[in-house]
Amino acid sequence: MAPNIYSQRRARVLENLEAIGLEQMLVSDPLSIWYLTGYYTEPFERFLALLLRVRQSDGAAETMLFRNRLFPDATGAADKIVSFDDIDDPVSLVTSACNVGLALGVDKGLAARWLLPLMDAHAASVFRLASSAVDDARSVKDESELELMRAASRVNDEAMSWLAAQVRVGATEREIAEGLLGEYRRLGADDHSFSPIVSFGANAADPHHEPDDTPLRRGDMVLFDVGCKRQGYCSDMTRTFFTAEPTARQLEVYETVRRANEAAEAIVRPGVTFAEIDLTARRVIEGAGYGEYFTHRLGHQIGLEDHEPGDVSASHDEPVRPGQCFSIEPGIYIPGEIGVRIEDLVIVSEDGCEVINHYPHEVRVLDLA
Amino acid sequence: MAPNIYSQRRARVLENLEAIGLEQMLVSDPLSIWYLTGYYTEPFERFLALLLRVRQSDGAAETMLFRNRLFPDATGAADKIVSFDDIDDPVSLVTSACNVGLALGVDKGLAARWLLPLMDAHAASVFRLASSAVDDARSVKDESELELMRAASRVNDEAMSWLAAQVRVGATEREIAEGLLGEYRRLGADDHSFSPIVSFGANAADPHHEPDDTPLRRGDMVLFDVGCKRQGYCSDMTRTFFTAEPTARQLEVYETVRRANEAAEAIVRPGVTFAEIDLTARRVIEGAGYGEYFTHRLGHQIGLEDHEPGDVSASHDEPVRPGQCFSIEPGIYIPGEIGVRIEDLVIVSEDGCEVINHYPHEVRVLDLA
Repeated sequence: MAPNIYSQRRARVLENLEAIGLEQMLVSDPLSIWYLTGYYTEPFERFLALLLRVRQSDGAAETMLFRNRLFPDATGAADKIVSFDDIDDPVSLVTSACNVGLALGVDKGLAARWLLPLMDAHAASVFRLASSAVDDARSVKDESELELMRAASRVNDEAMSWLAAQVRVGATEREIAEGLLGEYRRLGADDHSFSPIVSFGANAADPHHEPDDTPLRRGDMVLFDVGCKRQGYCSDMTRTFFTAEPTARQLEVYETVRRANEAAEAIVRPGVTFAEIDLTARRVIEGAGYGEYFTHRLGHQIGLEDHEPGDVSASHDEPVRPGQCFSIEPGIYIPGEIGVRIEDLVIVSEDGCEVINHYPHEVRVLDLA
Repeated sequence: MAPNIYSQRRARVLENLEAIGLEQMLVSDPLSIWYLTGYYTEPFERFLALLLRVRQSDGAAETMLFRNRLFPDATGAADKIVSFDDIDDPVSLVTSACNVGLALGVDKGLAARWLLPLMDAHAASVFRLASSAVDDARSVKDESELELMRAASRVNDEAMSWLAAQVRVGATEREIAEGLLGEYRRLGADDHSFSPIVSFGANAADPHHEPDDTPLRRGDMVLFDVGCKRQGYCSDMTRTFFTAEPTARQLEVYETVRRANEAAEAIVRPGVTFAEIDLTARRVIEGAGYGEYFTHRLGHQIGLEDHEPGDVSASHDEPVRPGQCFSIEPGIYIPGEIGVRIEDLVIVSEDGCEVINHYPHEVRVLDLA
């Protein structure tokens, strides 16, 4: 990516900060640091942070990266690189660099192990949760990012065909789940974007079921909720299949979820709120008498991480904006009996939305022969 | 594990809290919650926490678990279970439960997204980093935990033999790394305890090198730093092999690291400080003229996580105690040329230490034929 992409992003974050009255922010999320600098490393328990602030002389963005010397070289990633060793105290280094008379924004993941000592060291006059300044920039994607989102979902569409072809009597959830990474790699992806969910029969009634040694029996319904990471960007899709002709009850549940998914996708356009989109799907499911079995939010934003802030839920009443990407994933979960979820990713366009998953929604009975 | 194990652990943490003047603590680390209750789930961006406090009536430990209803059922895991949905605000639920007139301890991983709102809601009179109360309990393991640590390291010893057998001309780092999980499973482990490091030749000069498509060439040195997780407990070991007779320089580096490892292991006993153990290894390496190439702490504690608090480093001058388990992993990294590390886990005993890795330290030239 061109280096000026990063300076544009930093300028946007700085604008967002100024809009909430802040002139400095400590960014600790490694993916946000990558987003703003092009430098990526996973620090685990060690300290890594980017201090972003308004330069007093000209109001431009100024950056300082704090890195342990064990991390990869960061030359050029920030205006100043502050390197330290395991036995140094990064809190005092950050405190020396902050304008201690001003408020300091921090992001949502900053751990108490660093935040409380920074407070004790009076690194700033007050500490404010300012994640939204970065998260909002990450949420509204530029065209190059949207192209990467589409490409990751194209791989996911193809992977779903592969998954459907693995279903046979006696195959276990775990076997199929463990084969998926190889298929993603063959399709050009780098990794899973989250641990894949493969659920047979009543296991699907737990929306977060982990693949186990359950073998497939003829007649089980099969739920796949999977996603890959490709060039840093994530996909995430769910489909539910049949392995025998559906019963009337199964069909009713399935078609209710499908209608909820499609009703929600149909109303997405700039200005509609996240809460309205959630409500649209929820009303379809409630109207069919299954409201109590739709136990989670309708969806989540997605990008560099599978789950990004700004839920598609009743408690989020901001309007959606062009360039945002999120999941629409209604489900019905009847304990011990059945679980159905149908999930696509959508990108908000200027006048509607683009559904970036193309694997069909229609009932599909897999051939086990 | 017997349920009273958990109440014993909670009582120990409460004692630790009282010793630092606290009567209540919010524990957010999912592994610490498991350690104290037997309940485990990974909450990702959702809220999960255990409030542990002194019961006013009798001074015993009282617990309250806050869980999203999407998480697995937690019946019996705490005196009171507070369940909530995605649209509820866990911060107000916690605030209602805290004694707002008292200080509240929090653990090191509590994210700013929860900590700053809890502060804004005045959930306590003051917030204090109290991780040590839990971390200290986790650090000093009981006999059943030590047996699990030994068992995980036995698997790791066997896995090292398997790894050595995979080395052949043209094999890539990634291929070998990706085959390891299957071997761990065959040996009875559940997962990696961290992403395995497989480094050929000069790649080993980066202590955190990630396995890539580098093919093995005859004569490359080969470094494996790997660990498994078995029944919740972690192993972690490093060995460095030769694929041709070592040069005098290679041999000098290797033997220096080996002597540093063995000198450090020889002095571990209750009362010796972590810093002294680090210094012992460091002096051997400095004495051989390679001090500038030993760029990290000597080791880290280990248990439910691969890296646990309380480094074996110059900045940690507390004495070691029986039941603690940590790594001894000196290394020499000469950029572009060579990297050697030899790592074992040790358990502090009443009068010395038990090295729980048994794979030999001696120079080993692998047969590539």
